[in-house]
Amino acid sequence: MKLILVRHGQSEWNQLNQFTGWEDVGLTEKGINEAKSAGHKLKEAGIDFDLAYTSRLKRAIKTLYYILDETDRLWVDVTKTWRLNERHYGALQGLNKKETAEKYGDEQVHIWRRSYDVCPPAMSADQAAKFLVDPRYANLAKDRIPLTENLKITLERVMPFYEDHIVPALLDDKNVLVAAHGNSLRALIKKIEGIADDEITSLEIATGVPIVYEFDTDLKVIDKKILDA
Amino acid sequence: MKLILVRHGQSEWNQLNQFTGWEDVGLTEKGINEAKSAGHKLKEAGIDFDLAYTSRLKRAIKTLYYILDETDRLWVDVTKTWRLNERHYGALQGLNKKETAEKYGDEQVHIWRRSYDVCPPAMSADQAAKFLVDPRYANLAKDRIPLTENLKITLERVMPFYEDHIVPALLDDKNVLVAAHGNSLRALIKKIEGIADDEITSLEIATGVPIVYEFDTDLKVIDKKILDA
Repeated sequence: MKLILVRHGQSEWNQLNQFTGWEDVGLTEKGINEAKSAGHKLKEAGIDFDLAYTSRLKRAIKTLYYILDETDRLWVDVTKTWRLNERHYGALQGLNKKETAEKYGDEQVHIWRRSYDVCPPAMSADQAAKFLVDPRYANLAKDRIPLTENLKITLERVMPFYEDHIVPALLDDKNVLVAAHGNSLRALIKKIEGIADDEITSLEIATGVPIVYEFDTDLKVIDKKILDA
Repeated sequence: MKLILVRHGQSEWNQLNQFTGWEDVGLTEKGINEAKSAGHKLKEAGIDFDLAYTSRLKRAIKTLYYILDETDRLWVDVTKTWRLNERHYGALQGLNKKETAEKYGDEQVHIWRRSYDVCPPAMSADQAAKFLVDPRYANLAKDRIPLTENLKITLERVMPFYEDHIVPALLDDKNVLVAAHGNSLRALIKKIEGIADDEITSLEIATGVPIVYEFDTDLKVIDKKILDA
């Protein structure tokens, strides 16, 4: 059984160099091409999948769609979950990364971006209001909608989905595709590879490049391939 | 609660004038535009939906995707089911409609296309082989994969999905979107409007034109709108 992880293609705010988190922005043309390319690489490598999971954010959902289209697997069941959403970036969401660094200093921004357990400043109630009324989170208790997250908190909300959906599917001998975000994928990779807290935050995951894990029946990794170039 | 039905946009085989049925063909450029236009009309009319259902065939799945994108509702949960597939067209699948009429006569072809309970000739085992090994139908008993269908048989396999998924969602006060096919939609409309066997087959459903039913709490139709032009 295989688990295939793909980070979404370039988004409109990646291009603008803005903190995105739970903001729902689309893909750029480059991002669409990265998504199609991910599908093409999977097809070339002859890697099929039986189930697919993604977040509630359209940059990941669109990336998944293009992969399904490219691999002629649009019929595959897709589950969308907030648990695979990008790390919530708190009050930084929507701010330009360079301007934020100028205002707070490079070191502070580096800590917010790359520490395992330090959160960026929380959103104000005003900033958070739109998430509380967003119908895509209607099934979520209001106090479960984050005001900010670090990677540790992100991992803690990704894990229940991994344990309850991805692991059972793998144990059922299915190949599983996950199209998600830099930090929800870091959380999965940390778990799968047993990477330490202080090392995982510096792991870079390229957009649109499938990472293919193969497991034995005890869910031990027996192979890892990165389908670049 | 509302139920919105949309027939997929023009497919590659609609354009070639071929019987399609369970063959999995894509949308033409015109079909993509019809799908986007369906989404645009729903947005203009301010009609939201909470859940979406479609078939296992990409012309319907793609139509749904474009509607979700156009209405900025890509996050909505989508369920794909063989029960919403187009009517299986038996041995006629892949044949040109005009050539078939020349070979068997207009009257015979009219009967195959428009009678409620006459089936087109069944597929041979050879023709059917690819459906039996198709992973999208792996959860289906082999003897449930049709060799041919009429509208009556189509209706009988659509109804369990209507009763078990669509009706409960409507009773739960959800708005439901269904992107499907001419005959699986005829089956739903026959049930919803109580149309007689000999009348339903002549009901024409335009591609990419949303049909919006509004129900009271007893699931009686209190309004029907066709969102054309």
